Amino acid sequence: MKIVVMVGGVGGARFLLGVKAALGLPPVGAGESTHEVTAVVNTGDDVWLHGLRICPDLDTCMYTLGGGIDPERGWGQRDETWTVSEQLAAYGAEPTWFGLGDRDIATHLVRSRMLRADYPLSAVTEALCHRWQPGVSLLPMSDDRVETHVVVEESDGGQRALHFQEWWVRHRAGLPAREIVPIGAAEATPGPGVLAAIAGADAILLAPSNPVVSIGTVLAVPGIRAALRASTAKVVGISPIINDKPVRGMADACLTAIGVDTTAAAVGEHYGARTSTENGILDGWLVHTGDPAEVPGVAVRSVPLLMSDVQVTAEMARAALDLAGVDLG
Amino acid sequence: MKIVVMVGGVGGARFLLGVKAALGLPPVGAGESTHEVTAVVNTGDDVWLHGLRICPDLDTCMYTLGGGIDPERGWGQRDETWTVSEQLAAYGAEPTWFGLGDRDIATHLVRSRMLRADYPLSAVTEALCHRWQPGVSLLPMSDDRVETHVVVEESDGGQRALHFQEWWVRHRAGLPAREIVPIGAAEATPGPGVLAAIAGADAILLAPSNPVVSIGTVLAVPGIRAALRASTAKVVGISPIINDKPVRGMADACLTAIGVDTTAAAVGEHYGARTSTENGILDGWLVHTGDPAEVPGVAVRSVPLLMSDVQVTAEMARAALDLAGVDLG
Repeated sequence: MKIVVMVGGVGGARFLLGVKAALGLPPVGAGESTHEVTAVVNTGDDVWLHGLRICPDLDTCMYTLGGGIDPERGWGQRDETWTVSEQLAAYGAEPTWFGLGDRDIATHLVRSRMLRADYPLSAVTEALCHRWQPGVSLLPMSDDRVETHVVVEESDGGQRALHFQEWWVRHRAGLPAREIVPIGAAEATPGPGVLAAIAGADAILLAPSNPVVSIGTVLAVPGIRAALRASTAKVVGISPIINDKPVRGMADACLTAIGVDTTAAAVGEHYGARTSTENGILDGWLVHTGDPAEVPGVAVRSVPLLMSDVQVTAEMARAALDLAGVDLG
Repeated sequence: MKIVVMVGGVGGARFLLGVKAALGLPPVGAGESTHEVTAVVNTGDDVWLHGLRICPDLDTCMYTLGGGIDPERGWGQRDETWTVSEQLAAYGAEPTWFGLGDRDIATHLVRSRMLRADYPLSAVTEALCHRWQPGVSLLPMSDDRVETHVVVEESDGGQRALHFQEWWVRHRAGLPAREIVPIGAAEATPGPGVLAAIAGADAILLAPSNPVVSIGTVLAVPGIRAALRASTAKVVGISPIINDKPVRGMADACLTAIGVDTTAAAVGEHYGARTSTENGILDGWLVHTGDPAEVPGVAVRSVPLLMSDVQVTAEMARAALDLAGVDLG
C-alpha cells in the first residue's frame, strides 16, 4: 500500500508514528515493509533566524520518526542543551524568543549550508534524513520559499504583519489575527514527488494538524488541492478538534481568523466534500467519539482520537485507512 | 601615547595583555587611561566552515582581552562545550578536524549573519567587541577576504594548495610547504583606521606572532608596509623565536617554506631595517636573552621573552616601547 499523509509538526509527526505502526512498520526508524508512507510536510512555518534556516515541521517529523525528539516538549531534540542560544543572547542578538537548542542548531547549519549552495529543500531534507532514517519519505510541500505571516491589529487601530513564528511562539497566538497569509504560496510549485505521490496513492490522509497554518498552507500550494481532488485514492481527514477544543496548540486562534468555528464539524465543512463542493477534498472525516459532525457528501466516522500513545494512534490510523477503503488484511 | 601592535592569534593576544599592563590598563577588559592601544589583526587565517565565518586571530584577541579565553588551550572560550560539533559529525558534515565549540559558534553566527547583511568585517568586529570590551581597538588588517593557502607536494610529485587551517590544524603543519600564499592579499586594501592608526602612532610594535602567516600576511596587504616605512613612530619587533625554536606553534615550518632560518637573527633580517633596506620595516628588534642577533641597521636589545605571565609580558612590552623611544614616565 502507498499511503500519503499531509502533515504539520507535532500532531502530524505523532500521527505518522501511528500510521507506521498500523502498517506494521516500526514507529521509530526504518524497517522492511511492503507498505510505503509519504508525508507531505508544511513548510510555511519555516523561518530564517540568526542566519539559519529553520524548518520546524520537517524537523519535528524527522526527529520524532528518527527517535531524536524530546518527548516532553514534542519539538526539538532530547538531551538538548542551550549554550549557543545563551551566548547569542549575551551578544544581544535577536530574536531570543525562539528556542534553538545546540543539537538542533547542527541540523540548521547543515541545512543552511546546503541551501546556500543551491540544493533545494527537498534534497536537503533527504540528506538530513539519511542520518535519522525516519522510515517515511518526508517531502517538503514545496522547494520554494513560503512563509506564513499573520496580520494583527495594533493598539492604534493600524495593522501589521508578523511572521507566523513570532505570532505563535513569541505572542502565543495572543494577538488577535485579522488575516493569515502564506506569503509566496501562490507562486510556489509542489515539491518534487508530491504530485506523483498523491496520484499514486492508495489512500490519502490529512493528519490532525492545524487546519489553517499546517494543512491549509499545504493546500495553498497551487496544484496540490487539484491533485487531491483528482486522485483515485480516497482522501480522509482526521479532526484536530476534540470536544470543541484543539487537541494541541492554538488552532482555535487560527480558525477564528479565517471565520471557521472550532468544532470538528466546522473544520470538516471547511475542508469540504470532494464530490459535492467546488474545492472540497474530503471523502471521509474521522472525528472523536461523541463529537457531533455531519459533513454533507463526506463519510463521517467517530473513534477515540487522543494520540496518547502509539498503539492508540495506530488504531486511529487504522480507522482512517479503513474509512479510505484500504484493506490492510 | 598611541601604540599600534601588529598581531596574529595566541601569541599576539598574550602580548597585548602585556602591552595593556605596561600602559597601566587592566590586562583584561576596558579601563580608563590616557593611552590607546590599537591592534592590527591578521585575517589570513579566516575561513568559512559549516557556513560560518571563523576569524581565529580576531576571536583569540577578543576572547583573551575580554576575559573569555580558555587559558589552557589559548584559543576558544573557557567552559566550552562541543554539542554542535558532535552533531555536525553525526550528520557526516565536513570538516571534523576544526574545533568549533558551542560558545564560539554563537560568535560565528553573529558574525556570519552580519557579513551576509553586508556589514564589513571591521564593523562586525566592533559589534562583537561591544560585548567583550577588550580595551584595545581590534582592527582587521582588511575588510577584504584574504585567505592564506599552503602549497604542498603530493606523494606523486604533484602539488596542491590547501587552506592554511587545513594545513595547520588538520595536518599539524606536517606536510612540507612549498609555498605560502595569502590569496586575495594583493587586491586587498587596509581595513578602516589601519593606515591612520599607523600614521598617528607614537610607537609601533610587531608582536611575537608568526612572522610568515600572521605578521607576514598583514604586511602583504598593499599600503601597510609602506605606512610602516613612512611612520614617524619607531617600529620595534619582538622575536617569536627563542633559542632557535618558535615559542609556540609551528612557525619553523612556515619559515622553512619561505627560506628563512628559524633564528631570531634570521627573522630580524627577514623583517629588515627600515633605514638601510628597500622594504625593511624595523627600527628595533627585541630578542630573548642569550640569542645572538645582529641585524644591520636595526637596534637590537635582548630581554627575557617568555610570556609566562602578564607581569613578565608587561616587562617585555616596556622594553619594546623603550626601544621604540617611548617614555612612559
